[in-house]
Amino acid sequence: MNQPTPSTPVFASKNITNGVRAGILQTRAGIVHTPTFMPDGTRGAVKSLSPQQVTDTGVQVVLANTYHLHMQPGEKAIKKLGGLHAFANRKGPMLTDSGGFQVFSLSHINKITEEGVTFKNPSNGDQIFLSPEKSIQIQMDLGADIMVAFDDVTALDTKGRNRTLEAFQRTHRWLERSLSEFKRLTKYMTANERPLLFGVVQGGLDKGLRKKSLELVQQTAVDGIAIGGLSVGESREEMYDILSFLAPYYDPERPHFLLGVGTPPDLRFGIQHGIDMFDCVLPTRNARHGFAWITGDKKLQLTNTKFATDTKAIDPDCDCYTCQQGFSRGFLRHQFKVGEPLAGSLVSIHNIRYLERLCEGYRN
Amino acid sequence: MNQPTPSTPVFASKNITNGVRAGILQTRAGIVHTPTFMPDGTRGAVKSLSPQQVTDTGVQVVLANTYHLHMQPGEKAIKKLGGLHAFANRKGPMLTDSGGFQVFSLSHINKITEEGVTFKNPSNGDQIFLSPEKSIQIQMDLGADIMVAFDDVTALDTKGRNRTLEAFQRTHRWLERSLSEFKRLTKYMTANERPLLFGVVQGGLDKGLRKKSLELVQQTAVDGIAIGGLSVGESREEMYDILSFLAPYYDPERPHFLLGVGTPPDLRFGIQHGIDMFDCVLPTRNARHGFAWITGDKKLQLTNTKFATDTKAIDPDCDCYTCQQGFSRGFLRHQFKVGEPLAGSLVSIHNIRYLERLCEGYRN
Repeated sequence: MNQPTPSTPVFASKNITNGVRAGILQTRAGIVHTPTFMPDGTRGAVKSLSPQQVTDTGVQVVLANTYHLHMQPGEKAIKKLGGLHAFANRKGPMLTDSGGFQVFSLSHINKITEEGVTFKNPSNGDQIFLSPEKSIQIQMDLGADIMVAFDDVTALDTKGRNRTLEAFQRTHRWLERSLSEFKRLTKYMTANERPLLFGVVQGGLDKGLRKKSLELVQQTAVDGIAIGGLSVGESREEMYDILSFLAPYYDPERPHFLLGVGTPPDLRFGIQHGIDMFDCVLPTRNARHGFAWITGDKKLQLTNTKFATDTKAIDPDCDCYTCQQGFSRGFLRHQFKVGEPLAGSLVSIHNIRYLERLCEGYRN
Repeated sequence: MNQPTPSTPVFASKNITNGVRAGILQTRAGIVHTPTFMPDGTRGAVKSLSPQQVTDTGVQVVLANTYHLHMQPGEKAIKKLGGLHAFANRKGPMLTDSGGFQVFSLSHINKITEEGVTFKNPSNGDQIFLSPEKSIQIQMDLGADIMVAFDDVTALDTKGRNRTLEAFQRTHRWLERSLSEFKRLTKYMTANERPLLFGVVQGGLDKGLRKKSLELVQQTAVDGIAIGGLSVGESREEMYDILSFLAPYYDPERPHFLLGVGTPPDLRFGIQHGIDMFDCVLPTRNARHGFAWITGDKKLQLTNTKFATDTKAIDPDCDCYTCQQGFSRGFLRHQFKVGEPLAGSLVSIHNIRYLERLCEGYRN
């Protein structure tokens, strides 16, 4: 399994300036221009937005959560409904995560063994088993264009180097198993038919482990490098320190995906340190709470009383549907105050577009 | 005030067959082809839909609730934000109701006098006073294109003829006051600038009172006739009985608006008995609970287990966005099950479109 890179190059990039690069990622569902922000369609849909509204913001890839879709309605149901794209009515590329992050952050875990993780379904108490092979099988049934290998994210809730070391080591043994299963399931697919697989770099805040983890991932045939275990509670300085440290070591021939990061300053820092892809629930979750990003990476809390009769758009310089149609801050504040879901939809459109514009700014 | 009809005709219609007619209503915000269904944008927006999504269903008029907007954010705030159209980002005609129905159905009423109604704001306990003049003033501040005169809807919660009689009589004295206030506030407007005013026919299930009420309304200079006090708890047979009874007596030169009716069978019955306009929250409220109308006026409860892997659109014969894009019943069921608001939006689009197509069917 230790071929250095896949035989068909799926990614090409050129350096722009100061660590920033613009790239093109080929997926079976279409080309993706990087850097790019990918909103989270957790349960098959970006919350409160139609697929058309999502596409109109300039989104190129939509992420869906393996964990949530496995629980409900199940990958077999989605397969019967024609796969994730038909299910979610999404024409372009879709990425699924491995489920690892949710298993470790949302579930009551019963047992972690070398084989995999047994945990409780929080909604009905059922025992569920997830392993590297199982995660790949689920993502394959879902029909993702980009998959992520199942990782041991135990580093989430541990400070000690020993536990981080164990999670790191297991993540790499699991990556080999993920690759084997992926290879088995894609054996009869052509280069144009097969999905892509990304491996995950762990290692917590330990630079030595991070470097080693990156090297190990890059020694495998994965199509892309995902940076996991950041933006999970550490300080911004700590995250930036790791991102700065890793920047020189990335394989330039493959895309670099920073998991779970979605504020404008973090995107800028990531892009300036070799990151090509980002995903996060924040732009839409914040939007539903009346929080918008505006030019200069400033924050606007639209529920504030001072906006009650403000006729301005959220951001007069923005080209999103919400701002271009002239929905006023006063109208949005009112809709939030009376609990109308339209407000969250309209600000979600704005916040996603804000991040897409940010990425476009670096690409062009 | 007792001119029989307004000087400029705002409505023209031709009979099609069996009591059905097709009409054109001129409003200052554009022409409305009747019969037509008008969804309720209770608090300034049709729940969970963008104005664009509403327009795309073929909706010509959006209704907004005077009562709700008076409470929050207040008509003065909306006026500062440019009026209802700018506020709600609505290009076409908007109708406001009088607030009467909500005062009598939602509020704790402290006092009904000849002058008006004093009631408690349910959200903060404030005393609020609403009268015919006040209702017209609010609707004028909101900037509605079509207004409705404030009526005494006490008939809602009374069975006795005496109370019905009192409400009926007061409704007509109040209509005169509404007309005076309307005339005062529109004095300097040209025919193209002024909004329209509809008067409300009451009389409960008493045919004698209904006929008298209709005659009294039609003796005034109102631009349209609204039928109130139906679809408020009586049986469908009772409502149909009143609608059949009233049909021969309507002034054919003015539009007839049946308040609060929104199921396909009721729309058909109304249209076949001279009704031109309908409004209701049902199509969108039902949609948010997973209930859809499909061809043949059949009902589909999308949360039903049997739809879990159903790949069909809600209604393969429907031309709405949701059905045309191929969102499957299985996907919608899943979205309802996991509580995603997108499901309610997508089915709202379908249900509104269903009623608009029904109306188009009679018009063409």
